[in-house]
Order: sequence, then C-alpha cells, then structure tokens
Amino acid sequence: MERLGRNSVRLKELRARVRERRPGEVVVDGRRLVSDLVRWGVPLLELYVAAGSDHDPAVIAGALGVWQVEASVFEGLAPTRHPQGVLAVVPEPTSRRWPASSGVAVFLEGLQDPGNLGAIVRSAAALGAAAVLLSEGCADPFHPATVRGSAGSVFRVALERGSAVVEAAARVRAKGGTAWAADPAGAPLAGWRPRRPALLLLGAEGAGLSAAAVKAADGRVAIPLERDVESLNVAVAAGILLQHLRST
Amino acid sequence: MERLGRNSVRLKELRARVRERRPGEVVVDGRRLVSDLVRWGVPLLELYVAAGSDHDPAVIAGALGVWQVEASVFEGLAPTRHPQGVLAVVPEPTSRRWPASSGVAVFLEGLQDPGNLGAIVRSAAALGAAAVLLSEGCADPFHPATVRGSAGSVFRVALERGSAVVEAAARVRAKGGTAWAADPAGAPLAGWRPRRPALLLLGAEGAGLSAAAVKAADGRVAIPLERDVESLNVAVAAGILLQHLRST
Repeated sequence: MERLGRNSVRLKELRARVRERRPGEVVVDGRRLVSDLVRWGVPLLELYVAAGSDHDPAVIAGALGVWQVEASVFEGLAPTRHPQGVLAVVPEPTSRRWPASSGVAVFLEGLQDPGNLGAIVRSAAALGAAAVLLSEGCADPFHPATVRGSAGSVFRVALERGSAVVEAAARVRAKGGTAWAADPAGAPLAGWRPRRPALLLLGAEGAGLSAAAVKAADGRVAIPLERDVESLNVAVAAGILLQHLRST
Repeated sequence: MERLGRNSVRLKELRARVRERRPGEVVVDGRRLVSDLVRWGVPLLELYVAAGSDHDPAVIAGALGVWQVEASVFEGLAPTRHPQGVLAVVPEPTSRRWPASSGVAVFLEGLQDPGNLGAIVRSAAALGAAAVLLSEGCADPFHPATVRGSAGSVFRVALERGSAVVEAAARVRAKGGTAWAADPAGAPLAGWRPRRPALLLLGAEGAGLSAAAVKAADGRVAIPLERDVESLNVAVAAGILLQHLRST
C-alpha cells in the first residue's frame, strides 16, 4: 500500500476529481457505504484510506489500487463531512432504460436537491420500485451528497437518465400500464389502484410538475393534507406514494 | 425605509447574527417563507430587503423595522442559497409542552440533519400531527436550513424541546395512550392501529433509536422493506408512519 505525500501529483489530481465530478467515475466516502459497495460487487478502482484507522479487510482486498493518506490530509480531501477515513473511486453506472414490462417506476422532473434525489432512490430500492427515471436538468445522481443520501442505492436501483416525460408515459401505456402525476389537485390517495406497470411522476421542489407532465399522465393523485398546508417535502411524498403502491 | 451602507454597524451585527443564531430570535429568508410568516401572524421584528427588487406590500407593512441593502451586499448576507432579496428576524417560538390529551405526536431522538428535521415538522403539519417533541441533542429547529426545509412549519407546529423519552412515553400512557418505537424489528405497519393519544418515536440517522427509547415504548412498528435494504431516510419513514396513522 503506497503512502501519498501531501503534495503528491496523485493527491492533487484526486482533489480536483472530488471537487468536480468526472464522467465515468464516482467518488464515494464513508465506511459503511464503501463496504456495502464491495458486498454488492461494485469494483473499487481506487481506494484511499486514512493512516492510523482500521479498515474492513474485504474492502482492502476488493480494491484494484490502495493508497494511504495522512489523516489530516484526508480530512480536507473528502467530499462529505464525515468521511470516516475511507474514500473510493468506482465506475459510474450507465443509464438503464426502464423496459416498463411490469411493476412501478418513478419519474422525477427537474428535481434539484441531491438530498431529496438520494432519499427517493433509497425509497425506490427499499419499497420495491423497479426504476427511477430522471428528466434532463435533475441533480446529478452520482454527486457525493446524492450517493450518501441514497445510502448507496444509486448503485442498486436502475436509473434511466435524460428521460422525456411524454415518451416515458407513452412507453408505459404501450405495455398496458398507466402514468400518474403527483399533484395537489389530484384524486385522494385512498382509492388509488393504478394499473401496472405504473409510472409515478413527481415534480421539482417548489415548482411541482410542469403542465406538460400533468397532461402526459393518465390521471392525478394527491396525498390529502391539512387545510392551509400546501405540500410535503418531495421525498416524503414519493415515499408515501410508493408505500401505498406497495400495499395495494 | 433606511438604506444601509456596506460597512454599517447594523449590517456587521446582522452578519454575526446570521452566522451564529442567537437565543430568542430566528433569521429567515426567502420571499414565500417571509410572506407566509406574515400571513400566519408572526411579527417581523426586522426586515431587510435587497434594493431594486419588488416586495410583497403586506410584508413591508407587517414589519416593525425595514432596512434596504444593496443587492450585492444582500447576496453575501443571507443564510441560505436562494434568499430572493428578503430576510427577516422574527421571535423564536417558545417550547410548548405537548399535553398528550389527544391525537398523534412525534418524538425525535438525537436527529442531526436540519433538512430531515425540517421535513418531519413539515409532514407533522401537513398530516395533522399535534406536536413534535425533540430530545436533547437534536439539530436546532430554528437553524435557517431547518426553517427552509420545514417550509415554515416550525412556526406552526407545537415543538416541545429538551424532551426525555421515558417521561414523554409515561405522559402519553397516563392519558390512556400508547408510545411506539419505529424499529426495523417491529411488527409490520399493515396491522398497526395504535390507541390514541399516540406518540411515535424515531431515532437518529444511522444509529436509530436507543435501547432505552425502544424499552420506553409500548411496542415497535416497522415499514416492511425489500430484502437486503436496511432502512429508509428517517423523514421518509416518519411521513409513511404519519400517513398510516392519518388513514387508520
């Protein structure tokens, strides 16, 4: 295991790669997350560990290259606030087109917040959704904050990137399914029993779904809220709707 | 409306108050949020507006003092990324003890993330919970990120701060109710019909509830998840559980 000096070229380059994500690779940090990736069979192209901390032998064994970094240097390197002495570079998963053959998928239109995006992908994994489709202009699903927020689920759920809402809705209908817009003016959740495959459309924080997305859907569904409260956090709304779909 | 120079004493002091929250006051920014606060009757002790942007007349009229700040200065002043030219100082709501007389409340043990805390308070408001109880060591509910994440709900939902889980569970039982630990080892959500008043206990991100909190509860409830997925985001879990309580 090579030890990197504070001013080594590799470390300088790594800092730049952490600051600005490069296509094809994802920088992840956190003990649990990196261990999970190894368990799920994600190859660690590069692994950086802080000197003086214990490390999961399976993680060390699973890495193609391992470098040791002074603990104080490591602190300044990591993309998130609690890196826990482990940082890995892994291949970026490719976009996977949802075949709409069965089940439930989520379409996110212009979602901006990495934490919300991560939480939704995590819910999709936990509550059995088949895929998450992202429109152009969504937050980067492989931004470190998204990866952490997803508890690594961005590596487990099929993500389709650059999706167009009209085409996605048509695709699900072509398979005998239905697309639904989450919209405050929709029908109350309680009686909602959408035909599968089902695509659930969710809009951006604040703005909600575009008129075009609502129009592309077969219907609208709402979570009834207390008077004078306008909306839920989008990740919370997604979770409630996915849980409803799971239990009906 | 007084115009503040870049180096005015008031502006210097305001910067310090934004950086480090002072007891008794809350700094909020964002057009929508500040307008909502005025509509809800929250007094604006101080209002700072960026020169050259339009402002809600009701907001200007509702403020005890209004100062205008150069737009470029305003950008560096605001606590969140999209201040939208409006920043207000309002009184910090006092801690309100939940009487446990009826309904549903949420108890948060050591919740660290302001975004999660804000989303949970927002869900409590939207889904009809009576109160949110916060243990010692939770994130500050009046941190700017929490306030924004809650869409202002931290000013509408009764927040009880510095609560102790054993006492809170005993309080709900004394009123004939029940306390429930959200715990992966709990009984599945589907059959859960807790006697009211009901207190829902949720643990910190990562760690979950303490053994003491689980012991203090009358029972445990779980949201069944896919195999090999350990947990949901805590705000998503809270939303799903509150929605279940609302609909049963």
